[in-house]
Amino acid sequence: MKIGKQSAPYQSICTSNPETIIVRGHDLVDGLIGSVSFTEYTWLLIAGSLPDAKQRRILDATLVAIAEHGLVPSVQAARMTLAASPEAIQGAVAAGLLGCGSVILGASEAAGRFFHEIVVESEEKSASLTDAAEFVVRAYRAERRAIPGYGHPLHKGRDPRAERLLALAEDTEVSGTYCQVAKAVEAVLPDIVGKALMMNVSSAIPCVLLDAGYPLLALKGVPLLARTAGLIGHLLEEQTRPIGFIMSHAAAAAIEYDGPAPDGFVANEN
Amino acid sequence: MKIGKQSAPYQSICTSNPETIIVRGHDLVDGLIGSVSFTEYTWLLIAGSLPDAKQRRILDATLVAIAEHGLVPSVQAARMTLAASPEAIQGAVAAGLLGCGSVILGASEAAGRFFHEIVVESEEKSASLTDAAEFVVRAYRAERRAIPGYGHPLHKGRDPRAERLLALAEDTEVSGTYCQVAKAVEAVLPDIVGKALMMNVSSAIPCVLLDAGYPLLALKGVPLLARTAGLIGHLLEEQTRPIGFIMSHAAAAAIEYDGPAPDGFVANEN
Amino acid sequence: MKIGKQSAPYQSICTSNPETIIVRGHDLVDGLIGSVSFTEYTWLLIAGSLPDAKQRRILDATLVAIAEHGLVPSVQAARMTLAASPEAIQGAVAAGLLGCGSVILGASEAAGRFFHEIVVESEEKSASLTDAAEFVVRAYRAERRAIPGYGHPLHKGRDPRAERLLALAEDTEVSGTYCQVAKAVEAVLPDIVGKALMMNVSSAIPCVLLDAGYPLLALKGVPLLARTAGLIGHLLEEQTRPIGFIMSHAAAAAIEYDGPAPDGFVANEN
Amino acid sequence: MKIGKQSAPYQSICTSNPETIIVRGHDLVDGLIGSVSFTEYTWLLIAGSLPDAKQRRILDATLVAIAEHGLVPSVQAARMTLAASPEAIQGAVAAGLLGCGSVILGASEAAGRFFHEIVVESEEKSASLTDAAEFVVRAYRAERRAIPGYGHPLHKGRDPRAERLLALAEDTEVSGTYCQVAKAVEAVLPDIVGKALMMNVSSAIPCVLLDAGYPLLALKGVPLLARTAGLIGHLLEEQTRPIGFIMSHAAAAAIEYDGPAPDGFVANEN
Repeated sequence: MKIGKQSAPYQSICTSNPETIIVRGHDLVDGLIGSVSFTEYTWLLIAGSLPDAKQRRILDATLVAIAEHGLVPSVQAARMTLAASPEAIQGAVAAGLLGCGSVILGASEAAGRFFHEIVVESEEKSASLTDAAEFVVRAYRAERRAIPGYGHPLHKGRDPRAERLLALAEDTEVSGTYCQVAKAVEAVLPDIVGKALMMNVSSAIPCVLLDAGYPLLALKGVPLLARTAGLIGHLLEEQTRPIGFIMSHAAAAAIEYDGPAPDGFVANEN
Repeated sequence: MKIGKQSAPYQSICTSNPETIIVRGHDLVDGLIGSVSFTEYTWLLIAGSLPDAKQRRILDATLVAIAEHGLVPSVQAARMTLAASPEAIQGAVAAGLLGCGSVILGASEAAGRFFHEIVVESEEKSASLTDAAEFVVRAYRAERRAIPGYGHPLHKGRDPRAERLLALAEDTEVSGTYCQVAKAVEAVLPDIVGKALMMNVSSAIPCVLLDAGYPLLALKGVPLLARTAGLIGHLLEEQTRPIGFIMSHAAAAAIEYDGPAPDGFVANEN
Repeated sequence: MKIGKQSAPYQSICTSNPETIIVRGHDLVDGLIGSVSFTEYTWLLIAGSLPDAKQRRILDATLVAIAEHGLVPSVQAARMTLAASPEAIQGAVAAGLLGCGSVILGASEAAGRFFHEIVVESEEKSASLTDAAEFVVRAYRAERRAIPGYGHPLHKGRDPRAERLLALAEDTEVSGTYCQVAKAVEAVLPDIVGKALMMNVSSAIPCVLLDAGYPLLALKGVPLLARTAGLIGHLLEEQTRPIGFIMSHAAAAAIEYDGPAPDGFVANEN
Repeated sequence: MKIGKQSAPYQSICTSNPETIIVRGHDLVDGLIGSVSFTEYTWLLIAGSLPDAKQRRILDATLVAIAEHGLVPSVQAARMTLAASPEAIQGAVAAGLLGCGSVILGASEAAGRFFHEIVVESEEKSASLTDAAEFVVRAYRAERRAIPGYGHPLHKGRDPRAERLLALAEDTEVSGTYCQVAKAVEAVLPDIVGKALMMNVSSAIPCVLLDAGYPLLALKGVPLLARTAGLIGHLLEEQTRPIGFIMSHAAAAAIEYDGPAPDGFVANEN
């Protein structure tokens, strides 16, 4: 059954024969294994050509920034899943990644699209980045959409990871339009929202990556790849010092049943 | 409800307060972001301390070796999933990773455990690695278990990626017991199995990593992390040059229905 | 770390003690197992009370209608995943469900929300359902949003499953506002879109369910639950008559590499 | 690339043309939608023919028995995933199902295989079911394998759900060899293990299903399908009364960091 209107049966990432594997035009064995870092290879796979030293450094920094932040929901889901299904580590990693959605780790991608709207607005209307930022922020507010990448439940000032990424983009001279946009949004937010909302790591990641030339449509790949590394660390620990069911027990104990029950029924789930 | 017997409510990977995030004892912002590569950080997250230059190079090489091999089943599953569910890239990555199981990408882990059995056998019986390899291979055969990491449907000689990884382990002087074991298995296989089965990438990855000091229980993390990078490249391409439904159409056309049908029914699904 | 603003630590689905399990106020063992069908129990879990005979019949019919349609992408993804990871049937089911997204099986949910917008529009403006349908369809077109639940790549007239569900809703006297809305949309589409787009199963499912009193926010559950049954059938067959890699081989063969390659390189992946 | 040795490109579940969809030989629209219950259809999809009244009743009862048991790990993982990724209900369901593994819901399948080993042992050695049960239980103990389906952290006597399923199998005259085997295991366990381990729901489900003629290789489908219904109920509630992050907060608070930290560092993650 034909679904959709796809008509170009091509891919341009990898081809091979029994002797040789070609990735993005490079010979995998002779030109890449042992010669390039995993970060450089990731950039090649995604962007189609090898990164320069600045691009590599920015991608490394963003991956390091977002890989790990303790027992967040996606890590908990992964560790509980491994406790229940120790035969399938891939299932536990998958369960963790499924929580990298619009509310939590997906904010990097949403912030990237948001910054891109501001850049397009600025170009189309020949407006300053600040005016364009104000216009787009007000439009989001009018549609009751959250401003992605600002504010953090734990870090009340600017998220220190964001600060570090912006400084690195300055140091490496990568910082450009998108970093300016991110700061312009931070500047206009207090007037519009009524309180300061500082940049968090999810706005810093897209602005430094986009300024470095990383593709907009692959932004979500950065938290997903980074978090996979974090999950693997946690799942190794879960095999040797399991806490999945301890966390599950505490989580269940925090919630009370308030539905109907027969007369005289006394809950006792512990 | 208490499930299982977990009793130590601890983790040792990450802690934080509003100013500082500590990962494995390091200050994330001051000591890691912008200072270490993603590969070094991954080693830190998994092994608990930063790698030396050789360890980093081996981990980089194994990740590069296994990240991409064209339109394999896990990539197809991911691209079809994105075509059907474009709102959730994380779901497409998860679908792809779920195919990293015992038959395909999980062979690295299985081969690592298999090599470890041989090392233990050799130590416990004070046997040579070759004798221990022969003993364990015969035991696997007796239980009709596959020998993980040998033979490849495409590469008839030794998988060139395996060759490259072994050479790199030699060059960096990482090569040790596990590489010897892997070659010992290759040497004893023809006599036992009746044909040559050469090392493929899934036996080379664990032997060079284990010789470098990478933890046995985290071996599956390497193909999972590597493949995540490959999947992100494919999912970016799927957004701009979609082939998910083309592949699905071809896959369905390759299979015929041979169940019962009413008289006169003519299938026509295209 | 506190994320979000959740403040009511309650659930009202299930509670228990060592002797008794209470589900939605019913004693599971004494009142439900052996007494109610799985479909009735599903309605109870979702809607909070047991269905009447008409509600049960409509839910049964929609689940039966959507559970199986041959080797669609989600089934292919699941069968390929099981072929690669036979140790984890749950992973193969999960991979299949991840393809129940906005483009394919998720259309039931999207159509339900779309019909609900029309009902609200009609009520707020005291407009006829037809006028409200026309208004909302035009609004969708203006925003270039697809009209969910109309047209089908295989069935050119009205999808016979849709026809059957609508007839059943008539026969059981469940048919009401939402079925009228669904037909009103079908009636206004030719003028607006320029061609007939007939109801498919994804518009029929939500209109008969919503008329029966099924909750709007749980609509996606119907294709997900139904498809799980279909996947289990396919995964049983995959264990005894495997086709996952045959499909994967055909899918790969349908796609050509059009990226760069070294001079003289000849691809040969078969 | 050819992987594996699959050579029969056939499936026997579903075929179609633009007018008709055939499932297991039946016309979906004319013969199934509105005529059979979802449980009967599930049996048809899995077993290849429609069930009789007893088979339907047993499958209904097992699905009802296992669908819901409060805030168990898989439900927590699903609710946390939806809180983080509200755009993808299918991802939350998938995350929940990934926790249906060997330790928790997968025990039904493991118990089924275990019972099957006992039946085969009895047949091959012309031994009584009790002797065969004792032999296989001792073999499991010798290999330090858990006996699947006996004992429960909450229910200290026989799990009331198991009791109910066994009684239903008696009442419907379905009870046969597999139910005898399950009880024989319960009888021999105290002597071998040193304490009573009573049947739980995961041993009752496979014995009544296998006696009813349900296929051994599809046993895991029953908890997976059942749990999908439970998850949909919880995910509807999560949309209107969210507790995902409350549970996550409590789970994190139950675990302490015991890794290294800089002098003077004070954790404060709340």
